[in-house]
Amino acid sequence: MVLNHVKIKKLVEHCLNEDVGSGDLTTIATIPPDAVSTGYIVAKEDGVIAGLPLAREVFTQLDPAIQFREMIREGEKVARGRVLAEVTGSARAILTGERLALNFLQRLSGIATRTAGLVELVGGEKACVTDTRKTTPGLRMIEKYAVRVGGGYNHRFGLYDAVLIKDNHIKMAGGIRDAVEAARRVCPHTAKIEVEVEDLTGVGEALEARADIIMLDNMDPAAMREAVGLIAGRALVEASGGIGEESIRAIAAAGVDLISVGALTHSIKSLNISLDIKEIKGE
Amino acid sequence: MVLNHVKIKKLVEHCLNEDVGSGDLTTIATIPPDAVSTGYIVAKEDGVIAGLPLAREVFTQLDPAIQFREMIREGEKVARGRVLAEVTGSARAILTGERLALNFLQRLSGIATRTAGLVELVGGEKACVTDTRKTTPGLRMIEKYAVRVGGGYNHRFGLYDAVLIKDNHIKMAGGIRDAVEAARRVCPHTAKIEVEVEDLTGVGEALEARADIIMLDNMDPAAMREAVGLIAGRALVEASGGIGEESIRAIAAAGVDLISVGALTHSIKSLNISLDIKEIKGE
Amino acid sequence: MVLNHVKIKKLVEHCLNEDVGSGDLTTIATIPPDAVSTGYIVAKEDGVIAGLPLAREVFTQLDPAIQFREMIREGEKVARGRVLAEVTGSARAILTGERLALNFLQRLSGIATRTAGLVELVGGEKACVTDTRKTTPGLRMIEKYAVRVGGGYNHRFGLYDAVLIKDNHIKMAGGIRDAVEAARRVCPHTAKIEVEVEDLTGVGEALEARADIIMLDNMDPAAMREAVGLIAGRALVEASGGIGEESIRAIAAAGVDLISVGALTHSIKSLNISLDIKEIKGE
Amino acid sequence: MVLNHVKIKKLVEHCLNEDVGSGDLTTIATIPPDAVSTGYIVAKEDGVIAGLPLAREVFTQLDPAIQFREMIREGEKVARGRVLAEVTGSARAILTGERLALNFLQRLSGIATRTAGLVELVGGEKACVTDTRKTTPGLRMIEKYAVRVGGGYNHRFGLYDAVLIKDNHIKMAGGIRDAVEAARRVCPHTAKIEVEVEDLTGVGEALEARADIIMLDNMDPAAMREAVGLIAGRALVEASGGIGEESIRAIAAAGVDLISVGALTHSIKSLNISLDIKEIKGE
Amino acid sequence: MVLNHVKIKKLVEHCLNEDVGSGDLTTIATIPPDAVSTGYIVAKEDGVIAGLPLAREVFTQLDPAIQFREMIREGEKVARGRVLAEVTGSARAILTGERLALNFLQRLSGIATRTAGLVELVGGEKACVTDTRKTTPGLRMIEKYAVRVGGGYNHRFGLYDAVLIKDNHIKMAGGIRDAVEAARRVCPHTAKIEVEVEDLTGVGEALEARADIIMLDNMDPAAMREAVGLIAGRALVEASGGIGEESIRAIAAAGVDLISVGALTHSIKSLNISLDIKEIKGE
Amino acid sequence: MVLNHVKIKKLVEHCLNEDVGSGDLTTIATIPPDAVSTGYIVAKEDGVIAGLPLAREVFTQLDPAIQFREMIREGEKVARGRVLAEVTGSARAILTGERLALNFLQRLSGIATRTAGLVELVGGEKACVTDTRKTTPGLRMIEKYAVRVGGGYNHRFGLYDAVLIKDNHIKMAGGIRDAVEAARRVCPHTAKIEVEVEDLTGVGEALEARADIIMLDNMDPAAMREAVGLIAGRALVEASGGIGEESIRAIAAAGVDLISVGALTHSIKSLNISLDIKEIKGE
Repeated sequence: MVLNHVKIKKLVEHCLNEDVGSGDLTTIATIPPDAVSTGYIVAKEDGVIAGLPLAREVFTQLDPAIQFREMIREGEKVARGRVLAEVTGSARAILTGERLALNFLQRLSGIATRTAGLVELVGGEKACVTDTRKTTPGLRMIEKYAVRVGGGYNHRFGLYDAVLIKDNHIKMAGGIRDAVEAARRVCPHTAKIEVEVEDLTGVGEALEARADIIMLDNMDPAAMREAVGLIAGRALVEASGGIGEESIRAIAAAGVDLISVGALTHSIKSLNISLDIKEIKGE
Repeated sequence: MVLNHVKIKKLVEHCLNEDVGSGDLTTIATIPPDAVSTGYIVAKEDGVIAGLPLAREVFTQLDPAIQFREMIREGEKVARGRVLAEVTGSARAILTGERLALNFLQRLSGIATRTAGLVELVGGEKACVTDTRKTTPGLRMIEKYAVRVGGGYNHRFGLYDAVLIKDNHIKMAGGIRDAVEAARRVCPHTAKIEVEVEDLTGVGEALEARADIIMLDNMDPAAMREAVGLIAGRALVEASGGIGEESIRAIAAAGVDLISVGALTHSIKSLNISLDIKEIKGE
Repeated sequence: MVLNHVKIKKLVEHCLNEDVGSGDLTTIATIPPDAVSTGYIVAKEDGVIAGLPLAREVFTQLDPAIQFREMIREGEKVARGRVLAEVTGSARAILTGERLALNFLQRLSGIATRTAGLVELVGGEKACVTDTRKTTPGLRMIEKYAVRVGGGYNHRFGLYDAVLIKDNHIKMAGGIRDAVEAARRVCPHTAKIEVEVEDLTGVGEALEARADIIMLDNMDPAAMREAVGLIAGRALVEASGGIGEESIRAIAAAGVDLISVGALTHSIKSLNISLDIKEIKGE
Repeated sequence: MVLNHVKIKKLVEHCLNEDVGSGDLTTIATIPPDAVSTGYIVAKEDGVIAGLPLAREVFTQLDPAIQFREMIREGEKVARGRVLAEVTGSARAILTGERLALNFLQRLSGIATRTAGLVELVGGEKACVTDTRKTTPGLRMIEKYAVRVGGGYNHRFGLYDAVLIKDNHIKMAGGIRDAVEAARRVCPHTAKIEVEVEDLTGVGEALEARADIIMLDNMDPAAMREAVGLIAGRALVEASGGIGEESIRAIAAAGVDLISVGALTHSIKSLNISLDIKEIKGE
Repeated sequence: MVLNHVKIKKLVEHCLNEDVGSGDLTTIATIPPDAVSTGYIVAKEDGVIAGLPLAREVFTQLDPAIQFREMIREGEKVARGRVLAEVTGSARAILTGERLALNFLQRLSGIATRTAGLVELVGGEKACVTDTRKTTPGLRMIEKYAVRVGGGYNHRFGLYDAVLIKDNHIKMAGGIRDAVEAARRVCPHTAKIEVEVEDLTGVGEALEARADIIMLDNMDPAAMREAVGLIAGRALVEASGGIGEESIRAIAAAGVDLISVGALTHSIKSLNISLDIKEIKGE
Repeated sequence: MVLNHVKIKKLVEHCLNEDVGSGDLTTIATIPPDAVSTGYIVAKEDGVIAGLPLAREVFTQLDPAIQFREMIREGEKVARGRVLAEVTGSARAILTGERLALNFLQRLSGIATRTAGLVELVGGEKACVTDTRKTTPGLRMIEKYAVRVGGGYNHRFGLYDAVLIKDNHIKMAGGIRDAVEAARRVCPHTAKIEVEVEDLTGVGEALEARADIIMLDNMDPAAMREAVGLIAGRALVEASGGIGEESIRAIAAAGVDLISVGALTHSIKSLNISLDIKEIKGE
């Protein structure tokens, strides 16, 4: 799994405690401890599925003996009605874990599905769709994972792993060149330096400062195309700023390398997924 | 503040570490340690604002000396362009905290705004709009808080603080009556017992079992009205199941007490809010 | 097990570290790493046993290969001398875990035993014996669990899962009716609202405000009986205030539904339980 | 304060979250955010007070601006009715923190009071009253602190800070001498080595092995006196085993140096202490 | 401070608990609670000082009222005997915190001093001295900080913030080109891709694959010079492999951009620093 | 294993997250998830090996199915080239865990090797080589463990488990006798009391106060011999102060019981150990 499993265990443990607290009153009252059951996780609408490893971890923490059998592979595009996984084991564990497992699956699949849709719109153009730091606090690692599952790419993970120089940094540093040089002096040489610019003048300065990546912020496709020509492969070109389904194709056609889309994670439409209990048996 | 502040501090600390990690490379490189600045948090679209205490906590943890002055009150409905808060202090702290503060504010204001919209649609009817457990893992406390800020009500916080008997519990317990009695035997007497039913037969059984709340799941408004008549005030009546802007008014008109809306938190459209740095000065 | 196992693991881990710290000096010095042993957990006085799942978790964390065989079921009433469990495995793990396992077992069995004694005194009356929030800081979940094991019921788990309006709340809110209405406006509809009253006037006001539960605080049995008659099933009636073995029967006879006893957890007499090592063998 | 304050803060934070969870429903509903109040912590029975620093920390975490004025000094013996502290500030913070502050104070004062009673019974004899490892899981540091406040002494804090060789260690090591020598070879030279013996033969062997402390387990006072004579100052002598109010004086008279009493912490009778709100004012 | 202060607080809290545990026995016994004192942190040998913010945090956590006055600036090169800081306040806090404050200061100053020495040896050459991932487990952030304080540069912070392709990755991926392309497909575009090579053939392949950085592993200076010529500015060139004081100058002269030195953090010689208490007064 | 395994798991988890963060970019990109491999951990120089249980834990956390086969026993003295352990399993887990496993092994083996060297220099003398509290913050438990593995002894683990009275304590307490008596009054009787002295006068006072251990601080061997004669077995004698390979033999010959060496842990030279991947196979 391309997730740090040690962190995933902690995250799931934390979220289980949030939901279960001192105990699942209803389940304890109504379900015998030795009842066993089988549940089917089913897509209720078309989409790209992400989050199966998290759902598995939820049930496993509640009952290490539970069987979680994936019926599709993570990242598969499925049609409504498709069974995603079969869960067999303690009925109590299945009912107690149901909501959290679905909360993870629905959000991550929602992100993966939207990402895949944007990637499809980009079509034959070379542009990669990437996320931003506009993720849900506390869930960045798994939300960025869902973007990858959906065919997108990741931008930096945080303030610590790449340099992104914006207007305020530029103002304080005394210009783009000084800002880039300061970053080169201070930051690990392994981190690329990106500069956000708003027009072609900025592009020129960023090029001169030998930025690794130039972010074109809120430019129109025509200006972007001009910028791409000016840059001519000397830096990666990233388009940014309120880009969505309606505008992405035109921007991709401008020849940029990357298109970052905050809405991939700042506005999440969950994919409808449910868990259907087919049998439940006491002993 | 109607939030447990001790928990809020831990949450913000955790999320700051997620974003800042070993340090904000860009800010360290370009902003002098003693630079001071003022930033304005501004609404970029109309909405109901929630999350100011979280934004304050973000900046305060980065610099205890920072001034965070709220220009509106939490829960106020504002128009695009309105300044929500003014932040004055260490320029490094403001730039480093900006994204996390906005990530909180945008999501919570998105929830509050949607809640307020649904409450308005309910209009003069008595029905309360409530949330569900379909919240973002790890953020339940603050998302439910945002629902309250938007004029909604909270359903149970987790599996531990109320009983909600659904079809699988009923099946295993041997019927609604047995399930309710089991819950009454096992659970704190301070927790209400709710039963989910799908038709009027279920309503009758739940009434007979003296459920405190009866959830009408996916019924049409006409059936709901009939159920409300049958229940006649002997239990609270909650409508549930895929309810949204298009259907809520009709359901409210059926006379139910509560309308629970999963989409309030399972699908979040962030409100557009930004932080504008107006001045930034080194010494 | 009716405990949230994910939380139990964290609790036991924390408490093991409290006792073991950098290592069990004596055991490391005197017991070879490969020595195996069998220990018997034995009741040294009559009582109701609670805490076996915690004892099992203690030994399992120290050595996942250990065998912990329960010889009675949790909640069983046993006579002095009865073997409660047999532990077989690493002699080091058994000796290192002994004290913590017994500290849990002795306290929880002490609580269960006292609870069972009070339940027996209530005899044929309908009153349930419940705990309070006067639990040991940090151990509320397992102490309330022990009360259930002993045949008692749980009052609310914390300030978050039910409303209990006392005199200061009433004073500030401007009377019982205003306080109850405020709670109904603000709190989840799934939480019951309880009002504490000291006399029949209070009972009348609480009834009028449609409180779900009325707590009779420090009333004598005669006044309680009168209150029960007045309430006439329109609310649950809870007796509270310094109730113990000497007074519980008379109070139960007054017809209340619930009797809450702070001493169940604020003053704990451990049940005497020991671990006898029968054999210990090196290799 | 003779407590590690860094650990105390974490403990109080953890226990506040246990009680407050997602919020104090009743207080949020009925007490305005700006109401201020004064509460008096009052002893409802005679005793020795311990735990004021913990009570202070509880209120301070809920509201850093709160005034917590101690009216007695920690460890003072007070009569029923004595005001122990005055708390002034946010009415919400005072009502929300009340129960946890009292839960700490009542338990620790209960321990200190019982300790002081035993110390008084020892009277003019030289024996020190000490605790054991039979403390409440998770609270060892503060329970041992309460023993000191009550005039007692602390035995080792855990398995890590001293050696205590019991029968099973002796059996496995091949005798007292071999066990003591093994401990001397393996353990920090700063830790004393104590040996538990059950008769005078054991005393002789422990002396020969040059144990630093000899624990006389469950001996009668006459045998203890004989052991003390035999040891003649060459080791500290500790009496142990079911010692209580009825037996401690005779044991002290036997001339032992230390008397360890498990019941100091394994069975806790809380001291009755309450918080009386004298005024409460909104603005 | 160029450290994430939120993380520093947690680290210091954790390490204080490691040393202080249930309390500083000696200080509690011998120093009155109200004694005040002044201590001077003094260099006992020449060196570059790093770690003052950590020392300050240690004392501040033990007593928020303590005065920690820095007499030099972080990163200053000082001679033996120089006073680095003056600490005034609670004598207990100063004595309890002394060892941990010095443990941080001595290690970090040791790292900074060695780094500065290597930087000086590089002299007029352009090569930057960088660290590696061979840091002390748990202390990477502050050890890399010390390298910066000493005039060095940071390599990647972990496996998450840059790509470093070594022989095993190359073998599995089917060659340098395939490995680099895989990384480009999967990793954030903000992370540079570095390839480790052992000879000029490798250099050629890495160039062709358009690696951002080429690491010359264990080559002799002559081969390095040749590699630098071949690369001709098309990638950053990093020298690596057992480089120390004896070899760094020759390697720098070969024209590489970076020289990474594992020994900066895998073998640490603490700088001798002590805390001298000049006055100590009770009240 | 003579380490508290519950703590080791937490430590390794923490350190893995430090290095792996959101994921090992290089390995994820280049190594197929189902590739399996065998790695050999090999000593690159002569030394005493410590830390195998930590290395095993690192790989096990990354993949519970991994095989970690130790080819030597912990504490064995090995020659350059010796294979220490064979690791077989997921290639991703082996490559991701390699650095952390080596970081632990190299440091702890460095400590064990140096300790063993000093022990050998002491030769036939009775003196034990012990560590101090000058350990790496956060790693005290495992560094002291490495000292034991190398044949050394442990001094106290922290401020909480023994009393060590130094000059400032003496000054404030009003002399050695008063300080020792205060400690005896306040501290657990299980903790020994050590006094640091600088000359024979101090030795005399410490003897009179009946200190358990007398630390001779920075005395020359002749004075130490005199002190040993004076003490004549009435207390343990510890030599301390800048002792190293050049001076330890003479000090041991002076007849002291213990020689504490701060440099064992304050200045660590890692032992050169590497992990060689011999085969790596996809499926």
